[in-house]
Amino acid sequence: MLPGIGVFGNTITIRCLVPILRSCGFNVVALWGRTLAEAEDLSKQLGIPFHTNKADEVLLHKDVDLVVISCPPHLQWPIAVKALGIGKHVLCGSPAGPSQVDAFRMVSGARYYPKVLSLLCHGLRFLPTLIKMKQLIEDGYLGEVTICEVRVHFGSLMKDKFDWTCDEMMGGGVLNTLGSNIIDIISFLTKQFATRVHGMLKTYTKQTEKISGIREITSDDFCTFQMELNQGACATITLNTHMPGQFVHEILVCGTKGRLIAKGADLYGQKNDGLREELIHFDPINFKEEERYGICEKTRHAIPTPYLKGMIHLIEAMREAFEQEDERQKWCIGPVSRAATFEDSLYIQTVIDAIRKSTKVKEWVKVVLMTEEPDPNPFMSGKIHKSNYSLH
Amino acid sequence: MLPGIGVFGNTITIRCLVPILRSCGFNVVALWGRTLAEAEDLSKQLGIPFHTNKADEVLLHKDVDLVVISCPPHLQWPIAVKALGIGKHVLCGSPAGPSQVDAFRMVSGARYYPKVLSLLCHGLRFLPTLIKMKQLIEDGYLGEVTICEVRVHFGSLMKDKFDWTCDEMMGGGVLNTLGSNIIDIISFLTKQFATRVHGMLKTYTKQTEKISGIREITSDDFCTFQMELNQGACATITLNTHMPGQFVHEILVCGTKGRLIAKGADLYGQKNDGLREELIHFDPINFKEEERYGICEKTRHAIPTPYLKGMIHLIEAMREAFEQEDERQKWCIGPVSRAATFEDSLYIQTVIDAIRKSTKVKEWVKVVLMTEEPDPNPFMSGKIHKSNYSLH
Repeated sequence: MLPGIGVFGNTITIRCLVPILRSCGFNVVALWGRTLAEAEDLSKQLGIPFHTNKADEVLLHKDVDLVVISCPPHLQWPIAVKALGIGKHVLCGSPAGPSQVDAFRMVSGARYYPKVLSLLCHGLRFLPTLIKMKQLIEDGYLGEVTICEVRVHFGSLMKDKFDWTCDEMMGGGVLNTLGSNIIDIISFLTKQFATRVHGMLKTYTKQTEKISGIREITSDDFCTFQMELNQGACATITLNTHMPGQFVHEILVCGTKGRLIAKGADLYGQKNDGLREELIHFDPINFKEEERYGICEKTRHAIPTPYLKGMIHLIEAMREAFEQEDERQKWCIGPVSRAATFEDSLYIQTVIDAIRKSTKVKEWVKVVLMTEEPDPNPFMSGKIHKSNYSLH
Repeated sequence: MLPGIGVFGNTITIRCLVPILRSCGFNVVALWGRTLAEAEDLSKQLGIPFHTNKADEVLLHKDVDLVVISCPPHLQWPIAVKALGIGKHVLCGSPAGPSQVDAFRMVSGARYYPKVLSLLCHGLRFLPTLIKMKQLIEDGYLGEVTICEVRVHFGSLMKDKFDWTCDEMMGGGVLNTLGSNIIDIISFLTKQFATRVHGMLKTYTKQTEKISGIREITSDDFCTFQMELNQGACATITLNTHMPGQFVHEILVCGTKGRLIAKGADLYGQKNDGLREELIHFDPINFKEEERYGICEKTRHAIPTPYLKGMIHLIEAMREAFEQEDERQKWCIGPVSRAATFEDSLYIQTVIDAIRKSTKVKEWVKVVLMTEEPDPNPFMSGKIHKSNYSLH
């Protein structure tokens, strides 16, 4: 039985998500917006029965079984953790949180409530081309994986207003937004994980026509990073948002026997002894089908094709996971087994934090997964804390 | 008046160079080969009157005014330095030498004999598309240059036999072979120079069907490196030779106002406010013209199009430089003013050495140009050396 849904997010993402959720049969019953006016406006437009600007009112809503969170990263983790705590399923947007600590809190919640669904909205894992690519790699098409080379070219991520996307500390920037998906998909495809990383982040556009005055953009608009993977492969990734009017999304994986390259939603490959590159999977935009999911030009502009296609497949898979169980609230893992979990989110966020650190210290940084939450007040911890030590 | 030419090199490069030199009107009078048999064989094939395996015999040949050196890097600098010393012009292949010290010796020679021509065979500087790109950058098409992104995809550089190309210490590898040209062209295009660099070099193919047994390839077959340039721009370069059957050569330069991208020998560009990418310069392979320069399928296979085209233009320019002077041995700078000099070679080699060091120490390395040759025996140098200090 399909769960009732509460959505958290901004205008752009909600306008995109709600029609897809509905097309897949989900009932969207409640909506949270940053301001009451924004929430009211959106709920009217989309015909959602309940709206609020208080997160708890959506979380505690009796008809809400699953929350879809697509907020600024610093707001996501508290909502996700709270939702899990009261047994509500969570589908969380990317990037999950602005730091590894947030991701750790989320994963702790998910570990504590394993029966509750907790997934990341990483659509690329459900893109047919990348599923096919993963399968071919597992079947030995590449031999041993050696090199991953990823290139994303894109126009500016900046909007007209100054918001969290402009701020590095709040989780903005191309590394967080796009890099998180790329880090995830590389481990998804190769089953290898980063052990050490190096990064170079740049903010070349510090002000725009719309964002000026005393406000300055601090989030990265160009990023290149390298990873050493745990079974000997390496990866180099370049994310460039100084390419207005263009969207290039290429994931190349080389191996000892051949190579595979996903360009947008299509897959090409060549064996080392092959005569030419062959088209393995062709997945053009199907406007008719997208219309069925309520995808309009605006959505298509906001979310690049491979991510949009993947998200639709992900939500379809989530529907199946719930449909296969009769009881309300219950779901089965099968259809969503390839989805990114909060465990993956911790890995991704750890890699991102290491890349940020590398940029600052100008050297490679080891990727070390957090195993316990750092003490918020280290001066009062340990022996001092326990011995009731007095400063007077 | 055109100078008589002596060539140094291996079969592949000489077979390619000699017909081009002749088409441009140069008289190739002497040839040096690694072995006497190889030299004899080649001189017969190409109809060169004099051949030898002793470098001096070409250098001192009375009709040789200009030497074209296209040998393994560790052999190049001694020939170049000697040639300059006896007043013979030099066109030197790339990479010039396996280390910064060699490049320093060459540049010292060139500084000492400024009237003698000393150029690097970096054809890219003469490729019409890149000349156009440089001009547009100077004219302000890009505004301020921010990002250079270069990608070269290529099949293996390895030949059937184990030789210097397999050996990192002898100047082999993709960084030396292709990277040297890319480092050069970035400073040529942007007039900015690397201040700090980071690199990741990999050797994934350690043995091949033909190179096996106790011999192991140590030269890099994959390389990505990043550079901070001295006026605030940055660069990321990926050179991947695990792409058999493919040749991709893209040089992208982004600026605050737009972008320019050279794909092979063609140039594309888009202003930030432009509607679409426009084709600015189209330069397809002109088989008829190439035939005139004696370019055959083998040559086209050995030297990628932009490099081959550029080299032809470079040699044409060299002809002009000599033709404009009546006296034998004299040349004028005009036509070859854009060529890479031995000074450039020192910069390039310094950057390459810094990238290699960065790979080892896993951090960014400053680019510091050598100003004097390091003491070959530091234990016997300085005060100790001067004071006749005795160990007994």
